[in-house]
Amino acid sequence: MNVAIMGHGVVGSGVAEILINHNGLISEKIHDEINVKSILDLRDFPSLSYADKFTKNFEDILNDDSIKVVAEVMGGVNPAYDFVKKCLLSGKSVVTSNKELVAVKGAELIKIAKENNVNFLFEASVGGGIPVLRPMTQCLSANQIKEFWGILNGTTNFILNKMIVDNMSFADALKLAQDNGYAEKDPTADIEGHDACRKVCILATLAFGKHVYPEQVKTAGISNISLDDVYAADNLGCVIKLIGHAKLLENGKISAEVRPTVVTRSNMLSHVDGVFNAILIDGDQTGEVMFYGKGAGKEATASAVVADIIDCAKHINSRKYLDWADGYEGYVVNTSENEEKMFVRITGDDFSAITDIFNKQFASLTENITKNEFSKEICFITKPIVLSILKEKLAEFKNCEVKILHTIF
Amino acid sequence: MNVAIMGHGVVGSGVAEILINHNGLISEKIHDEINVKSILDLRDFPSLSYADKFTKNFEDILNDDSIKVVAEVMGGVNPAYDFVKKCLLSGKSVVTSNKELVAVKGAELIKIAKENNVNFLFEASVGGGIPVLRPMTQCLSANQIKEFWGILNGTTNFILNKMIVDNMSFADALKLAQDNGYAEKDPTADIEGHDACRKVCILATLAFGKHVYPEQVKTAGISNISLDDVYAADNLGCVIKLIGHAKLLENGKISAEVRPTVVTRSNMLSHVDGVFNAILIDGDQTGEVMFYGKGAGKEATASAVVADIIDCAKHINSRKYLDWADGYEGYVVNTSENEEKMFVRITGDDFSAITDIFNKQFASLTENITKNEFSKEICFITKPIVLSILKEKLAEFKNCEVKILHTIF
Repeated sequence: MNVAIMGHGVVGSGVAEILINHNGLISEKIHDEINVKSILDLRDFPSLSYADKFTKNFEDILNDDSIKVVAEVMGGVNPAYDFVKKCLLSGKSVVTSNKELVAVKGAELIKIAKENNVNFLFEASVGGGIPVLRPMTQCLSANQIKEFWGILNGTTNFILNKMIVDNMSFADALKLAQDNGYAEKDPTADIEGHDACRKVCILATLAFGKHVYPEQVKTAGISNISLDDVYAADNLGCVIKLIGHAKLLENGKISAEVRPTVVTRSNMLSHVDGVFNAILIDGDQTGEVMFYGKGAGKEATASAVVADIIDCAKHINSRKYLDWADGYEGYVVNTSENEEKMFVRITGDDFSAITDIFNKQFASLTENITKNEFSKEICFITKPIVLSILKEKLAEFKNCEVKILHTIF
Repeated sequence: MNVAIMGHGVVGSGVAEILINHNGLISEKIHDEINVKSILDLRDFPSLSYADKFTKNFEDILNDDSIKVVAEVMGGVNPAYDFVKKCLLSGKSVVTSNKELVAVKGAELIKIAKENNVNFLFEASVGGGIPVLRPMTQCLSANQIKEFWGILNGTTNFILNKMIVDNMSFADALKLAQDNGYAEKDPTADIEGHDACRKVCILATLAFGKHVYPEQVKTAGISNISLDDVYAADNLGCVIKLIGHAKLLENGKISAEVRPTVVTRSNMLSHVDGVFNAILIDGDQTGEVMFYGKGAGKEATASAVVADIIDCAKHINSRKYLDWADGYEGYVVNTSENEEKMFVRITGDDFSAITDIFNKQFASLTENITKNEFSKEICFITKPIVLSILKEKLAEFKNCEVKILHTIF
């Protein structure tokens, strides 16, 4: 079966190498040969053994009826969206690792795929090499998924891990991540949570059935997390992670957000270190299941793309069914009215005053607490409380720095 | 679509309840109705809302051509094997949670399923509600799996966890497991590793393609693990887990074993507590991925069975492809000739003599060590060494109790 690859960057070259180097293994598995017919890239790669496969003209792929499956690994919404749409309309199945494209255009592209009886698969778009979309939609199909939490961005997890383990400042850890190639020169998409947000959109849509758009997901990054926050969480037996979360509400709507979260060490997510990712899913029948592995990287991501290609090859005449209806305004609601355990860190000059207010107002509302007279701070985990009510009460602490974080506790 | 359930025990009743109570959710997902036509059990359940569906006669299911999928949840090899075989031969797809049946008869039953163009699926047979077989065979299909490690038995993990966390003796922890319904009256299959062994057979066969039979897997249980072993491992930053393991060797053969293993706390498996299971798989492209969740329990296991039923319903006219060739004698080899890091615990009356020998013979071979003059013991993790050579050297310790355990370090 002939396939084409659009984009020969990190992931694209990985896909080409697996399909060419693992050709034997794969054809054994599917009892068919997968042949890379063309690769779209504007650059030249004269030194490659498969240099003859390159084209700069998308039409060469679109108009080649012998190409049944196209892997889109260019990234970005444009021109990927236009190319993918045309491929689907012309009866080619498409697989992609492009989370931005899926998060923004998933509903439309899946509808087009259905209408043309071809597949549109994107396992690699969430969790890189971690199998999660297919297990969630197929293996948990007897479940009503209630909620999920994910460490969905390796760059921020690497940075937070360095802060936790090596007492590195955020700036130094970011610098190290950049030096190691884990973070882009412009790290905004990672550290401000935009990348994790796109993955939450994809997971939430597949988990709950309606398209969630990036702008609907309340997103905060880790740039405001200080070493003192990390120490304070540690003293309470917790670590700080950037968590993407979504939950099915009783009214059929959902909540969805990305935010730095204080995670107790008794939760498996607290042990996901370095550039690794993990997704913890709560199904009404199976309870909590977790998927863990490398969330990025050439080989890991490429192997997920190739797995989708193999899946298309096996189902060339049938469609893998994915529920993905259009979303609507107001489908994703703000959760601040739910009772939750919150992490609070209060610092101020007058430690005894802080202590007095705490003892009067908060002692009874608190589960865990650490007081540090030297650094003049009190940190605690509240009992379940509505955020707005908590904020009211915290107003008592005048001339203090007050920090509030959500928890998994 | 009509389905039948053979066996109305813990899992069987769970399957019936999900199919009946979640009927709406499921038919939405597959755009088809799944109707439980008959349930095979020798007992009567007059009080059940679906009491009319029961039969004591297997022929009623076998001869009903409207039944397309049969869930075998009786357990044991007989009569399950005979019933499943007859269903497959008569063109019915079969799904099962019966690890013993799959471990012993998998190759033959898969062959019969292929010849009759029906499905034989068994996701629930390993890891209960954890999606692992499908992700391993489909999502990792671009990988050559190199090795896997699994905590595959919740009973033993619960017992070891109680020993680690609550300093309970093995006997007390076993008693507690029995009182909680986590362990059978006769716990042999769990604590001696037979249950984990069957799961290793299934995982190894799917990972490496040739049938591995229970008698080929070197199996040891946890009944000889003492609290002192647990303390010693803890002092070295490790926990003791019952690990099922298999590895692809350079000559195309594999090693496979079940044994108590000392696991460093920096490995995710060390954090899998209580009755939870996890499987850590090392693929040549994707690196390490882990699947974690409840390895047993009515709802979790039943939901995996139902997921397979749904999969059969979706692929009623096509076959899900599974590579599962016959095994052969000598395919699974003993690994004692590989260099490995080993855990060694030596106790004896003459502590200074032990220390002398250690300093002369082992100091240079050791990575971590703890000495305890009070309990007169030395524990250490060796550098990679061949077991037989290690045993020779340990012969130096005369009149001492010497314990050796494998490690994940």
